[in-house]
Amino acid sequence: MSTIINVGESSNEKAALIASPARPGGWKKGIAIMDFILRLGAIASSLAAAITMATSDQILPFFTQFFQFEASYDSFSTFQFFVITMAFVGGYLVLSLPFSIVTIIRPHAIGPRLFLIILDIVFLTLATASGASAAAIVYLAHNGNQDSNWLAICNQFEDFCSQTSGAVVSSFVAVVFLLLLIVMSSLILGRH
Amino acid sequence: MSTIINVGESSNEKAALIASPARPGGWKKGIAIMDFILRLGAIASSLAAAITMATSDQILPFFTQFFQFEASYDSFSTFQFFVITMAFVGGYLVLSLPFSIVTIIRPHAIGPRLFLIILDIVFLTLATASGASAAAIVYLAHNGNQDSNWLAICNQFEDFCSQTSGAVVSSFVAVVFLLLLIVMSSLILGRH
Repeated sequence: MSTIINVGESSNEKAALIASPARPGGWKKGIAIMDFILRLGAIASSLAAAITMATSDQILPFFTQFFQFEASYDSFSTFQFFVITMAFVGGYLVLSLPFSIVTIIRPHAIGPRLFLIILDIVFLTLATASGASAAAIVYLAHNGNQDSNWLAICNQFEDFCSQTSGAVVSSFVAVVFLLLLIVMSSLILGRH
Repeated sequence: MSTIINVGESSNEKAALIASPARPGGWKKGIAIMDFILRLGAIASSLAAAITMATSDQILPFFTQFFQFEASYDSFSTFQFFVITMAFVGGYLVLSLPFSIVTIIRPHAIGPRLFLIILDIVFLTLATASGASAAAIVYLAHNGNQDSNWLAICNQFEDFCSQTSGAVVSSFVAVVFLLLLIVMSSLILGRH
């Protein structure tokens, strides 16, 4: 019993050491490094979303005299918007890496953090808008809509549908990464 | 010429008075009041979006023996999602008003501000997702899509289309209000 209490005390001492005012920027540095890692994840998922959507193209093996059945991302203007926006988001995130490194080196600097959080919010909105609008079209492609007589096209264009669905999922992963980034940044700003 | 210089000096003095350290919470209180007003605007636009979409219903004046042509928001699951989400966003914004009042009374308190900014970010994402997905469907309803043989339904359902378009515009107004709210909050958090 006494041993357990001792262990508890020593871990309390460790916690006190970690949170000691002698290293006030310690946890901020840790969060800044996590920010950098999350940013890498967001870059990977947003660029994967853009590339997956941009390469989605399916030509059906049968055709009539006048018409060949083809589905590609540029059939739908929503998917074009998706490719452009996700590429923009990925590009912004790559350019934001140096600023993230600055916050690792100088955990107490407010300027770069404020700059990052405001741009992050703008690009979060962009990524959410493109992901959600593409999701609405993918849903229609899978299920169709009876009242407006829009038929599901996924029975014919299976590969196209699975590829666009994957791109949408990937974009939502990027949105979750961006959300975590922004919440972490605002927590740091609130505690500085 | 000297008069102009005098005016410039006196306005400089005024600016110095406003920014004087004797009233350090002055500009924060101003921004907190603006936060409250923007929140009222966001409530109005998000609830207007939900109500406009929920009341969109049009029955065409001609029918066959077996079928009556009707379009309403619950024909499209995206529009149902839109109504539910915008009602949620409006409800959250109403519940956030007391916290906004607390930041007016205590401009230096960090807790309520941090609470508001994190929830604002979550509901900004929700509002953007529902607005963008509804916009994708409204676009299809207006223009159709040739490659997937989805015909535009707005030629028949004019009232339905104009009402849903209005709801989408209103939701984007709410998104802009929320964006402004979050940017203002993060600026305050960065300067405290």
